[in-house]
Amino acid sequence: MQRPPRARDVGLACGALPAGDLNSIADVPGVRVGHRTLVDGEIRTGVTAVIPHSGNLYRDKPVAAVHVLNGFGKSAGLVQVEELGTIETPILLTNTLSVGTCCTALVRHAIGHNPDIGRETATVNPVVFECNDGCLNDIQALAVTEEDARSALSSAASRFEVGSVGAGCGMSTFGFKGGIGTASRRLDLDGHSYHLGVLVLSNFGRAGDLRLPDGRVIAPPEAERERPATEKGSIIIIAATDIPLSDRQLKRVIRRSGVGLARLGSFWGHGSGDIALGFTTANVLSHDEKAALVDIRILNENRIDLLFEAMADATQEAVLDALVAAGSMTGRSGHHRPALTDAL
Amino acid sequence: MQRPPRARDVGLACGALPAGDLNSIADVPGVRVGHRTLVDGEIRTGVTAVIPHSGNLYRDKPVAAVHVLNGFGKSAGLVQVEELGTIETPILLTNTLSVGTCCTALVRHAIGHNPDIGRETATVNPVVFECNDGCLNDIQALAVTEEDARSALSSAASRFEVGSVGAGCGMSTFGFKGGIGTASRRLDLDGHSYHLGVLVLSNFGRAGDLRLPDGRVIAPPEAERERPATEKGSIIIIAATDIPLSDRQLKRVIRRSGVGLARLGSFWGHGSGDIALGFTTANVLSHDEKAALVDIRILNENRIDLLFEAMADATQEAVLDALVAAGSMTGRSGHHRPALTDAL
Amino acid sequence: MQRPPRARDVGLACGALPAGDLNSIADVPGVRVGHRTLVDGEIRTGVTAVIPHSGNLYRDKPVAAVHVLNGFGKSAGLVQVEELGTIETPILLTNTLSVGTCCTALVRHAIGHNPDIGRETATVNPVVFECNDGCLNDIQALAVTEEDARSALSSAASRFEVGSVGAGCGMSTFGFKGGIGTASRRLDLDGHSYHLGVLVLSNFGRAGDLRLPDGRVIAPPEAERERPATEKGSIIIIAATDIPLSDRQLKRVIRRSGVGLARLGSFWGHGSGDIALGFTTANVLSHDEKAALVDIRILNENRIDLLFEAMADATQEAVLDALVAAGSMTGRSGHHRPALTDAL
Amino acid sequence: MQRPPRARDVGLACGALPAGDLNSIADVPGVRVGHRTLVDGEIRTGVTAVIPHSGNLYRDKPVAAVHVLNGFGKSAGLVQVEELGTIETPILLTNTLSVGTCCTALVRHAIGHNPDIGRETATVNPVVFECNDGCLNDIQALAVTEEDARSALSSAASRFEVGSVGAGCGMSTFGFKGGIGTASRRLDLDGHSYHLGVLVLSNFGRAGDLRLPDGRVIAPPEAERERPATEKGSIIIIAATDIPLSDRQLKRVIRRSGVGLARLGSFWGHGSGDIALGFTTANVLSHDEKAALVDIRILNENRIDLLFEAMADATQEAVLDALVAAGSMTGRSGHHRPALTDAL
Repeated sequence: MQRPPRARDVGLACGALPAGDLNSIADVPGVRVGHRTLVDGEIRTGVTAVIPHSGNLYRDKPVAAVHVLNGFGKSAGLVQVEELGTIETPILLTNTLSVGTCCTALVRHAIGHNPDIGRETATVNPVVFECNDGCLNDIQALAVTEEDARSALSSAASRFEVGSVGAGCGMSTFGFKGGIGTASRRLDLDGHSYHLGVLVLSNFGRAGDLRLPDGRVIAPPEAERERPATEKGSIIIIAATDIPLSDRQLKRVIRRSGVGLARLGSFWGHGSGDIALGFTTANVLSHDEKAALVDIRILNENRIDLLFEAMADATQEAVLDALVAAGSMTGRSGHHRPALTDAL
Repeated sequence: MQRPPRARDVGLACGALPAGDLNSIADVPGVRVGHRTLVDGEIRTGVTAVIPHSGNLYRDKPVAAVHVLNGFGKSAGLVQVEELGTIETPILLTNTLSVGTCCTALVRHAIGHNPDIGRETATVNPVVFECNDGCLNDIQALAVTEEDARSALSSAASRFEVGSVGAGCGMSTFGFKGGIGTASRRLDLDGHSYHLGVLVLSNFGRAGDLRLPDGRVIAPPEAERERPATEKGSIIIIAATDIPLSDRQLKRVIRRSGVGLARLGSFWGHGSGDIALGFTTANVLSHDEKAALVDIRILNENRIDLLFEAMADATQEAVLDALVAAGSMTGRSGHHRPALTDAL
Repeated sequence: MQRPPRARDVGLACGALPAGDLNSIADVPGVRVGHRTLVDGEIRTGVTAVIPHSGNLYRDKPVAAVHVLNGFGKSAGLVQVEELGTIETPILLTNTLSVGTCCTALVRHAIGHNPDIGRETATVNPVVFECNDGCLNDIQALAVTEEDARSALSSAASRFEVGSVGAGCGMSTFGFKGGIGTASRRLDLDGHSYHLGVLVLSNFGRAGDLRLPDGRVIAPPEAERERPATEKGSIIIIAATDIPLSDRQLKRVIRRSGVGLARLGSFWGHGSGDIALGFTTANVLSHDEKAALVDIRILNENRIDLLFEAMADATQEAVLDALVAAGSMTGRSGHHRPALTDAL
Repeated sequence: MQRPPRARDVGLACGALPAGDLNSIADVPGVRVGHRTLVDGEIRTGVTAVIPHSGNLYRDKPVAAVHVLNGFGKSAGLVQVEELGTIETPILLTNTLSVGTCCTALVRHAIGHNPDIGRETATVNPVVFECNDGCLNDIQALAVTEEDARSALSSAASRFEVGSVGAGCGMSTFGFKGGIGTASRRLDLDGHSYHLGVLVLSNFGRAGDLRLPDGRVIAPPEAERERPATEKGSIIIIAATDIPLSDRQLKRVIRRSGVGLARLGSFWGHGSGDIALGFTTANVLSHDEKAALVDIRILNENRIDLLFEAMADATQEAVLDALVAAGSMTGRSGHHRPALTDAL
């Protein structure tokens, strides 16, 4: 099978900062992504897993933050991330009605690696994000199983597909076929190179509103336009970095995902669950820490504009990446989403 | 079976305001509560359902608010309540690791009553709250099934049991046996009577910290004290009222649940997921509203101190109600929790 | 004196929705704006007043909301607006170091009209917003007096100037001369016409980042570019509407100001205090309300996308309005800001 | 002049943790407090200054956090503390209507020590907190001057008075005379001793609601009770520590001030501006930092319950300290507040 094109392959780069080698969230060392894609009859859905590092995430918790751009969404696990500033499981993305199943899968996954959970130690906070793929997918079928979630987790790698794969299988964006996209930026601080990488599950935007980096507005062909009901959208933005940041700094950085979405033509619609999560692999807190005090490293905040710019640019490009990689698709009840590449 | 005593039966009333006739969340007309209790081998857990009104909750959404006192918790559905100020499903309470299963059960329940979900209309936001009953319950068994959740929903009534029932089955409080408790206050506004009712899933507090309304500090017998690990706590507070309030007003009211907890001797410990949700049956928004503008009624905020006092008092008493109604229990690995009534 | 051009006079309209007759915040009936401009030696500063209605604002408090896009700012009064969802004074805009003086001026203004303040009734919450005009203005001089604030208040009218006037006198935007700008959108709901109006105090953006609605990127001439230190920016966005909204709905609407800023080329820089306040003249709460319950009208939230779009478009255009109306200026230490119109 | 008694002198200690040597916020090394008290005719007001360290606070910014328990208040500077997690001026406390004047005083104070403010570098964020002393003080007189603020700053010392001094001069608490109080706790972590200190400006609580640590409820004599209008209250809680914490950790700690208030009998009334600010002297960030990355030390969060308990206890005791130290006072229009010590 031929690898689908990336955004840059068709000239859709964003901003002035250099991309990482893979132009992917996996440019952050240790980050891996896996997919489980379900296509069968009226089913067009799946699961995508983002794994922050190769160790035991419950034992070694990356510093993390969440930001809700628009909260018409059903993602799970945000309360504890907000309170404690860490995550302790892989991140799963799926369709809206499968959040519960993916939570349970993450619970079992964590118990499997940490038999003391809920016995000698605390419980575990699964983080699961979602978009509504009900246009192309028979979402009422609740097709995703715990086994599908495990499959996405076990297939995770630093090289991964984008487009209509995993949770992105049945997603739509600005009236075109959407899905999974990614991008990264290389950032130099005091002579060292770091990366900020973004992965999106893109399912937002009204047909006719998409604006390309050069200013062109692109709409799907009139006949195919089926303007989506406003309440069916959503976008999830996962950001990873190896720059040492505090949770507050991370939160400030991922808030700038909203800039990328606005540049693409979105006004963060009412019915769209637009949620960002960020983590840093440079600050990892031990579940079993014995010392009372812990040394961490943070960013001199006077330099944070560089990360803001990278976040805005990488979010914008990751959405375009999803659009470019996803081919056209016909799904539930014959609903069709054209490919952006056909319209370009 | 004899009905267990209530807090007032043993002299533990709180505050000066009058209680409702049932001294229960069900003093708010239309509110019902159901339980499914699981006791088998090492299993001591369950599900409790709070149903705000008898209609179709997805079609007629009560105005609601959430407040996180301490966010070391895994409850689901808070993001959308925060954004939109409404709930659209019954509220389920369960153990920490069963949140996913209860979310899925609520999704199927909503689809059953609203076949347009995820097809012609939006998806649905299940609200599920949890505490960790891992001390007395084999929480790793993930014993709760979707059928258990349905059973809790279908058994809901305005008369319901408190103590070691439903989600409260395996819970602990200040080293004693905890569980489900409830209380209400009758509030008179401009010549009409209204109610504020509270139901708690009580599983928080260090042994030795419990303070009764008269100032006495009560600890479990030394030999049974098994001081719980700080991270195993949590309390969920559900408040209902028929007073017309905006979501912001509701949020201010339920924040005062923290006052009740503090009076009981808690300092809202690090490892405790202390979360409150409130709803009003007096403002219900239609999913299918056609008019652009909608009339609602709100409280003259100069009167809100009355509700603050009621919320603090009812939360305090609801926890005592759970403690009084719950008998002693021996559960997983022979772990034991004595009854407060034995220590009084 | 010739009236300076507006954004639309040079072809810089934003979005598809119709503007109000004045294309101004004063298209919302009752809203008035006044300026006091200070130009003397090294002084280039002033005060701008936005008055929500002609009555006694302390007695009749408009429902209001604030949203902080980036909190590197010193504006006053936000805590109480967040808690109570109302404002109770006119809104003053000024330079960063004059916030205290303007607070005191508003306090005296409120006492003058309400002699019971701080005696028989509560105190008063002045709302004052600011940007840093230190590039063109000798901000250390603290040139603004209480008399200047009173002068801005007393000169308020529904027809008012934009550009380098009032608080906008010494402001900069994307390396050009900035200042005060305004725009409005007419919105039709169930056969009635309403307006959403925006006024900005625009002092943000890096030279070279400005993007016009047609996609062109415009930079000041190289020689004049003096790239501003990142921490010297800020933008204040004041939104008014006569559409009945709750405070939560208002907060959602004004959050979309960030979309307008992003379209202009900003990524909401670290050093920029980007803050929005919105109010509705359609819901006004009485300080002296006697009834326990109050009827208000809110928006059917399924229609709110229309307001989101209007907010994004009007914010974007209001900034361009400030840029177009402001001529070039030379100020403190010979610092110079060219006019956008010269670069077009 | 005889030094007034402290809370412990009359047996009102709170909790089990040991107090610091001074039982004062100044047990945190480097913290100093100064007062300027104004008593003249109908005037009973003043200014209190809390100075976190002896260096240049603008150059060396302590990590800090704010938490709003109830936002019916007019304090200034919170937006930036929330965004950046630092303070950069001393903290001033005063009456509600004098916040503007104290902001301006802090601005001039900062410029005096940092002539580059608003010129070569950013502006400055004054933090000023307030309560309404309008019952005993002619608050409309706006009696506080910039010179008074400077006087409070210049008189700061590690030994300072409590009771009816500084900003506390005209304050009331639970119907008694209130004012400034302080307390501290010594905390041992890994063999080193640290302190958490609290200073309150106490002006909250309804007459008849005060509860002492032993459970007694104490009301002012019937004839003197003049029940205060609910909207005239407020309490400001300033917490200092030399334990290394992140801003998020600090925010969690100071939130527990609400526990102390609840134990005293308050339900955080509607009209009360209850606001906490905390800072740590162990993490100080340089305004002129050159390195891109900075090392800081934070707490192993599994230990944070110790700080929660200390915060709750010290807040409770600091309020009692204010009550005990303040003698009775007759002020504006013959209004009288009895001393708690007379009622004991």
